[in-house]
Amino acid sequence: MRVTRLFVDHPFSSGQSVSLSEAQAHYVMNVLRMGLGDLVYLFNGCDGEWRCVIDRITRRRCSVTLEEQVTIQKSEPDLWLIFAPIKRARIDFVAAKATELGVSALIPVFTEFTDVTRVNTQRLRSNAIEAAEQCGRLSVPEVDESIKLTAVLADWPLDRQLLYCDETGSGIAINEFLAKQKASGQSKPTAILIGPEGGFSRSELDLLKERTNFTAIDLGPRILRADTAAIAVLSCWQSVLGDWPGE
Amino acid sequence: MRVTRLFVDHPFSSGQSVSLSEAQAHYVMNVLRMGLGDLVYLFNGCDGEWRCVIDRITRRRCSVTLEEQVTIQKSEPDLWLIFAPIKRARIDFVAAKATELGVSALIPVFTEFTDVTRVNTQRLRSNAIEAAEQCGRLSVPEVDESIKLTAVLADWPLDRQLLYCDETGSGIAINEFLAKQKASGQSKPTAILIGPEGGFSRSELDLLKERTNFTAIDLGPRILRADTAAIAVLSCWQSVLGDWPGE
Repeated sequence: MRVTRLFVDHPFSSGQSVSLSEAQAHYVMNVLRMGLGDLVYLFNGCDGEWRCVIDRITRRRCSVTLEEQVTIQKSEPDLWLIFAPIKRARIDFVAAKATELGVSALIPVFTEFTDVTRVNTQRLRSNAIEAAEQCGRLSVPEVDESIKLTAVLADWPLDRQLLYCDETGSGIAINEFLAKQKASGQSKPTAILIGPEGGFSRSELDLLKERTNFTAIDLGPRILRADTAAIAVLSCWQSVLGDWPGE
Repeated sequence: MRVTRLFVDHPFSSGQSVSLSEAQAHYVMNVLRMGLGDLVYLFNGCDGEWRCVIDRITRRRCSVTLEEQVTIQKSEPDLWLIFAPIKRARIDFVAAKATELGVSALIPVFTEFTDVTRVNTQRLRSNAIEAAEQCGRLSVPEVDESIKLTAVLADWPLDRQLLYCDETGSGIAINEFLAKQKASGQSKPTAILIGPEGGFSRSELDLLKERTNFTAIDLGPRILRADTAAIAVLSCWQSVLGDWPGE
């Protein structure tokens, strides 16, 4: 039987009562048809997962009492996804899939060839929360406000490496890079940068190439769409350097 | 500038004239607003890619003359994706992404816990063709008619290994398996099997476990949706054993 997991942005302590949001209350009461005394599981990104019991129901609201912590907090690997926004269905999709694939932050960036001019980060965050609830994460990735790529690069944290997909074919095969890094025994905070469907501009590529801890990677002979490339790189990274290999 | 690539199911020879389908003619004439003398590129899955010139236009039809082969035929790795069908948008998505990720065959299978009861293989094939045109493939994956999983297993080709995603957690970490196979230097025809959102049944898992060249693989601590799992496994496989590592 599937358990109901909900994210709430609220500190936890035993015996405490927490109000669910209206949307969560609707889901619990009207979609799942739960009632007083039924169990739901809450997480807030820092206090693990708690078994809770529904203690109060009104027409539109619902609150639960925190009974017991059932899972201690675990964090996801330190992995950012920086991506040029794409059209609506695909960007929702990227937010959900990247959450399932364990990113710690989602950063939409505008590049020279980005078609989309506005990003609804609130909707991205909703998608990330829903995916986190379903995939069993104990955290929700941070969703940053959209920003220019040049601004991100200007303020780049020195200790973080960046992998970017270079469609011009001059990158290193992704598994070659990952296997080498794994063999070196170094684990570095990482960001993955996916450009827009039109690729990076000449000047953007020049900016990326001049950094020492930035690496152009190659994803094979077929041209992947931006959303496919994002999922592919995240999967490969998790499988070699992330938390898929097991403890 | 992006070139227009179209798949036609027709043998090629130099100087030959080929009629585009009505949908292709509509796309070329009304969407791209091309006319007589404009160039399109055709592939048919066996004769490489040809530069063609539009030689005839009527209200609804369009034909092209094959001028010159510009790319010789390459085939994709021998990699099947066997998947339990999921709801409409997601199954279209799997067909397109799997094509970008270079599968050679798409095989929808019904399992005990599969909710969906009918698969429109014609639509799957259209999605695969469109993705093949866009991603630069010279082939379109075969799309099989849907079939019961038990029937696929009963008639399994002895030389083909199968990787299946085991959500019960008893599988080998995917990169451990792939790295070992790469180190062994053996390349085997492979199939990847993705179950439905409800997982495999006990008896299906028993059937899968008893085969010697079937391997349960693990995709980390988060529960991936079926479509995410499909893309993740295909990406990891291509990055280690497929055609991503380069020649």
